Amino acid sequence: MEKGPIVLLTDFGLRDHFVGVMKGVILARAPKSTIVDLSHEVPPQDLRAGALLLLASVPYFPKGSLFVCVVDPGVGSSRRILWARTDRHQYLVPDNGILSWLPEAVREWREVSNTRLFLPEVSATFHGRDIFAPVAAALARGLSSARLGPVVRDPEGLAFPGPARRGHKVRGEILAFDRFGNAVTNLGWAEARYGAKIHHKGRLLGPVRTHYGETRDGAALALFGSTGLLELSVRNGSFAKRFKARIGDKIESRG
Amino acid sequence: MEKGPIVLLTDFGLRDHFVGVMKGVILARAPKSTIVDLSHEVPPQDLRAGALLLLASVPYFPKGSLFVCVVDPGVGSSRRILWARTDRHQYLVPDNGILSWLPEAVREWREVSNTRLFLPEVSATFHGRDIFAPVAAALARGLSSARLGPVVRDPEGLAFPGPARRGHKVRGEILAFDRFGNAVTNLGWAEARYGAKIHHKGRLLGPVRTHYGETRDGAALALFGSTGLLELSVRNGSFAKRFKARIGDKIESRG
Amino acid sequence: MEKGPIVLLTDFGLRDHFVGVMKGVILARAPKSTIVDLSHEVPPQDLRAGALLLLASVPYFPKGSLFVCVVDPGVGSSRRILWARTDRHQYLVPDNGILSWLPEAVREWREVSNTRLFLPEVSATFHGRDIFAPVAAALARGLSSARLGPVVRDPEGLAFPGPARRGHKVRGEILAFDRFGNAVTNLGWAEARYGAKIHHKGRLLGPVRTHYGETRDGAALALFGSTGLLELSVRNGSFAKRFKARIGDKIESRG
Repeated sequence: MEKGPIVLLTDFGLRDHFVGVMKGVILARAPKSTIVDLSHEVPPQDLRAGALLLLASVPYFPKGSLFVCVVDPGVGSSRRILWARTDRHQYLVPDNGILSWLPEAVREWREVSNTRLFLPEVSATFHGRDIFAPVAAALARGLSSARLGPVVRDPEGLAFPGPARRGHKVRGEILAFDRFGNAVTNLGWAEARYGAKIHHKGRLLGPVRTHYGETRDGAALALFGSTGLLELSVRNGSFAKRFKARIGDKIESRG
Repeated sequence: MEKGPIVLLTDFGLRDHFVGVMKGVILARAPKSTIVDLSHEVPPQDLRAGALLLLASVPYFPKGSLFVCVVDPGVGSSRRILWARTDRHQYLVPDNGILSWLPEAVREWREVSNTRLFLPEVSATFHGRDIFAPVAAALARGLSSARLGPVVRDPEGLAFPGPARRGHKVRGEILAFDRFGNAVTNLGWAEARYGAKIHHKGRLLGPVRTHYGETRDGAALALFGSTGLLELSVRNGSFAKRFKARIGDKIESRG
Repeated sequence: MEKGPIVLLTDFGLRDHFVGVMKGVILARAPKSTIVDLSHEVPPQDLRAGALLLLASVPYFPKGSLFVCVVDPGVGSSRRILWARTDRHQYLVPDNGILSWLPEAVREWREVSNTRLFLPEVSATFHGRDIFAPVAAALARGLSSARLGPVVRDPEGLAFPGPARRGHKVRGEILAFDRFGNAVTNLGWAEARYGAKIHHKGRLLGPVRTHYGETRDGAALALFGSTGLLELSVRNGSFAKRFKARIGDKIESRG
């Protein structure tokens, strides 16, 4: 596969040394790498938030991109580290299901078990630095994936919280909020078409719209966001704040 | 014009996929681009904060830089997207006046209306990904600006909240705060010279200084900041916190 | 020395123009530079936090890296700006002791006093832009360090708050917290070996562990973190929040 950038997705935040040090390790071993930050503000250990970020992002990255995803509640336990390959991209991830919602099919999984690729001393707490970064650098320099470790056939999965249909009603929930306070739900086009009446915690918000411009500033509305999932918004305001909404809040689409 | 970096200024924040995905789109189409983050923490939809950031920044960027500015309260309405050219830089912006405070003259405006440059599907909510990023990549690869769309002669403007002079007094206001809690005002050198007495909400802060070192740690002072505007500070402290200051607070310079 | 990336460490945060403008100045003068962000979220003017970040980071960066560290409570006073060289790296810093905890020896110090390397106008408040960035660019382009200014033999120091041993007890303190709420202490391997009983504010936390996996989710534990210092943690939780811990809290290791 042609070479693309190394794309970092972590829950490390930007105040500590974690992300900078991963880049240091990569650049020490593969100085010509292009490194892109997808996000480092995944809430600590929140696999669903990480999976949702990947769902929204991977189709837009160049062929050959290598996604290095370190959201890793299992660090320091015996969880495996995996490499995955789709038709367009490669991934390095803890074996915790974070790739389960990808909009592309994984063709091959391998365990990353070849310790000669790791830093000489592997800490108990920072595998991003000691394993993920040097293995990413090795792949960027052309390492054959067969050298990583054996093929894996039983990766962990992460269930997508699917909506439930009952007659002409579909019940779903809020999966996440973005920085603007828009609520991302688990309803796709199949569950809520244009004009369907959307309720949040039993309260009618209105019909599904197509553009913010269909309402006035400050009005609540539901529309399909840029990820293909229904979002609840307040135009130029925050749905989260206005309606004291929380992750897991029940949503209903009628008609 | 020679090629410089693509400089991103948005209110997208860094926790969501927005900024990373814009970079993915740019790198997929112009893999050799250098991308620089100016800021992604503009307060949501705050055009004045965005305009002030550009005022403080653009003279320091290389000739040929392309600024992609997505602070866009009008997304999903019929607002235009514009390209602008000065003697040193290019800009892609929503037509909302965010370039009005630039310290360099715009020589040419064009509407970005050539949909063949956009992603194949343009969402209603994320033009940063679907329009700004692919158009930036096309320009980075040498697209002639004439291909973007027709010349525009009526871009939107954003009034700078100018200070008011009455005799030997000048009244102004606080425009913004920086991360340290320094208050940036709308008074320039013409309105408050060295030694002038500065009042905040009617309370005397003291004379305009030239260096933090003229006061002791923890003391309040006024001095011209790095943007050429008068700033109100507490040495190694936060003016915002100490004086419960807010955007729009009245300032007065006497003498 | 071979060329490595320019690594930025500041307390500027990411919402203002400060970091973006420094990159603009560097790229205007050294367009082919690779710039890496170590962190910009050092708490304002917190030299100990900056020194700790460098302690944890520099061994992982490529040979030839140039660290530009602007945590600078003395800006606007007469403090010097220094260049330092170790066997592997170069540094540009205010003369305030921020390099005192480096895990590598400084071989040479120079004062950065050659004003021809600075921007034509040097502000009183933003030396990151006006001095540090253009000097970094000059070094990246191969400037001989002898051109910076005279050798310095009396750089400022910053004392490491060392632990105190009394018989079989060692008393230390909390130095910092990371994003996950883990508390980084000043106890190294010499002060607290595997199995030693760790107390926080007089309360027993338990013995020193080697892996998070030795405890269950939500349990408190002490283990050596990735910087080689003892850390107090809650597995997949926040030690800081759970135990209302603060910087300076007393720690004790027994046996």
